[in-house]
Amino acid sequence: MRIRSSFFSIFLLSSSSSPSSSFFSSRFSSLSAMSPGANGDFKSRVTVVGSGNWGSVAAKLIASNALKLPSFHDEVRMWVFEEVLPNGEKLTDVINKTNENVKYLPGIKLGRNVVADPDLENAVKEANMLVFVTPHQFMGGICKKLKGKVTGEVEAISLVKGMEVKKEGPCMISSVISKELGINSCVLMGANIANEIAVEKFSEATVGYRESREIADTWVQLFNTPYFMVTPVHDVEGVELCGTLKNVVAIAAGFVDGLDMGNNTKAAIMRIGLREMRALSKLLFPSVKDSTFFESCGVADVITTCLGGRNRRVAEAFAQSGGKRSFDELEAEMLQGQKLQGVSTAREVYEVLNHCGWLEMFPLFSTVHQICTGRLKPEAIVHYRDHKA
Amino acid sequence: MRIRSSFFSIFLLSSSSSPSSSFFSSRFSSLSAMSPGANGDFKSRVTVVGSGNWGSVAAKLIASNALKLPSFHDEVRMWVFEEVLPNGEKLTDVINKTNENVKYLPGIKLGRNVVADPDLENAVKEANMLVFVTPHQFMGGICKKLKGKVTGEVEAISLVKGMEVKKEGPCMISSVISKELGINSCVLMGANIANEIAVEKFSEATVGYRESREIADTWVQLFNTPYFMVTPVHDVEGVELCGTLKNVVAIAAGFVDGLDMGNNTKAAIMRIGLREMRALSKLLFPSVKDSTFFESCGVADVITTCLGGRNRRVAEAFAQSGGKRSFDELEAEMLQGQKLQGVSTAREVYEVLNHCGWLEMFPLFSTVHQICTGRLKPEAIVHYRDHKA
Repeated sequence: MRIRSSFFSIFLLSSSSSPSSSFFSSRFSSLSAMSPGANGDFKSRVTVVGSGNWGSVAAKLIASNALKLPSFHDEVRMWVFEEVLPNGEKLTDVINKTNENVKYLPGIKLGRNVVADPDLENAVKEANMLVFVTPHQFMGGICKKLKGKVTGEVEAISLVKGMEVKKEGPCMISSVISKELGINSCVLMGANIANEIAVEKFSEATVGYRESREIADTWVQLFNTPYFMVTPVHDVEGVELCGTLKNVVAIAAGFVDGLDMGNNTKAAIMRIGLREMRALSKLLFPSVKDSTFFESCGVADVITTCLGGRNRRVAEAFAQSGGKRSFDELEAEMLQGQKLQGVSTAREVYEVLNHCGWLEMFPLFSTVHQICTGRLKPEAIVHYRDHKA
Repeated sequence: MRIRSSFFSIFLLSSSSSPSSSFFSSRFSSLSAMSPGANGDFKSRVTVVGSGNWGSVAAKLIASNALKLPSFHDEVRMWVFEEVLPNGEKLTDVINKTNENVKYLPGIKLGRNVVADPDLENAVKEANMLVFVTPHQFMGGICKKLKGKVTGEVEAISLVKGMEVKKEGPCMISSVISKELGINSCVLMGANIANEIAVEKFSEATVGYRESREIADTWVQLFNTPYFMVTPVHDVEGVELCGTLKNVVAIAAGFVDGLDMGNNTKAAIMRIGLREMRALSKLLFPSVKDSTFFESCGVADVITTCLGGRNRRVAEAFAQSGGKRSFDELEAEMLQGQKLQGVSTAREVYEVLNHCGWLEMFPLFSTVHQICTGRLKPEAIVHYRDHKA
């Protein structure tokens, strides 16, 4: 077990914008001074990070386990990008007062041991476990802000879907975290639509790990509940790519729904999407295993995301409009500030495929991007063989 | 290419009862006397067999290709278990007059080259390709009737879902055909809800073959259309078991829907179902390949069957009734004479698992059977770990 320092911190990041800092610091530093960790009993410290829809649910899961597990400090700190609510109150104030994220997960108690903190640096400073759960476009800024501030033997886990595309190829978020902060990062992905887990309906997830099974087991302990079954898999890239690429498949499935093409067509498109996910993952990382795609992060996440996720929903509306309304417009109208990942991931995947000369091998992924940008009509989703880029 | 004799016959079997014979014989023998095959030009003869919902759609697909492919006789004969319609007309008469199966696929033209024949022996006698597509419980009787009547180099393909359970273990329908009739049999399975293919919505299927890729390619030619994409796979048992076992998963998915458990739970149950399908197939036939489960017959068929199939629909109603109404009663009420395969397959699978001492390894399959028989409540579907048989 590599985790030996006294504090774990769980970072649940706001899903609406880049991080800001300070103002609740005094309150939290007094709380952390009371922690068993500070008293030298070496409990892992789950301070906290992040507060979107999924982030809030993750905090709830972790908080319930932190209370039960003797090796964890009770308090789970949640970093919240501060927002002022319509009634003039600050979001962190309301979370700490009501124990609910009234904006992103209304009606669900997070657990009394979850403490919202608007100051990113303060939230991480005593942590030895960091959970990253933000829209992927904010991860660069967050890592920049945390660079050099995370010290000691700290472990991270990423719940972030997406990747950064650089000239030299795609860069997974877990790698960005490892590179920027100098720490190991696992990933947790799977068939988990936040609102359903929030009301404790049965679901599953997959933890992908790079080296230590022991670290993976610790994360499993921290997330696993009777209604949320977590399985560790020795394939961090495969698990992470599943979580990223499935959003592109969900966009395709949304088009099929919007055009009312029926279940056969939808199943075919989901299958072809899963096949392209698997093929691309193996091209990018030859260590990726076939068996990963049978895990919750693979086939189950494709299913749940294509049945009920927001990418599917907005893509359905896009296709219903005949491609005349833009994704930006629909996102603003339909998602109340939440972000759509599938469209930007489709663009990034397209850039990778184009850069590597692989467009013809991935007709479904290519076609999704071309429909999103208006170069092809939504109907092209089932004629993608005619539109090989 | 093993297929050299002059006639192919496509057997599409009625889905309502066991076969009866005769009475249209004179008409059909005159038709077959006009066939090019009889004139010695060695065209493969697609006479015909079967006429349920899926059988009628298969006849439509094949008929459109038989017209286009020079190596096939135009006529596709369809064996129909004779029924008298409410207006007093015979089903075969109406099919041959209107070119529609008014009972099992109303509103869809089958193709002018499809000829309904109520006489099983007559329908097969000049055929060199047989397509079996009936509820699996009728296959035993049909094979008995055809035993010794199928001569020459005849090839078969089975679209039948299900298996026969004998003391010595499960027996796949393709094996029953091979054993009883002494001919090779491929299988065609996949994500194909008949009514959606009937209206030419895009979908896929998988042909599983045992030995000859060339034979498989011939079947692909005969079924493939721009809206129905067929892929051959060298794994007849894997493909056939997918088509059989997915109906058990669909029953589980129906329970989840009936209990309104949400998409995460449904995706988890579908994934666990796919995992048990894969594990059981590999235990029964070690040659079964993982990759088969990524084909249309695997993941896509699980998806489409769990989204829209009749097994799912009846299981949903069963769960909504709290298990108080029987499957027999619901089947009679909801399916207009069509048969439910999932419940009997679940029983057969249970018998195999029980006989082999594997019940604990397949908690989902075991639980489905126990819910169907009233030994467990529908809610047990997500607590199956507590109910290991």
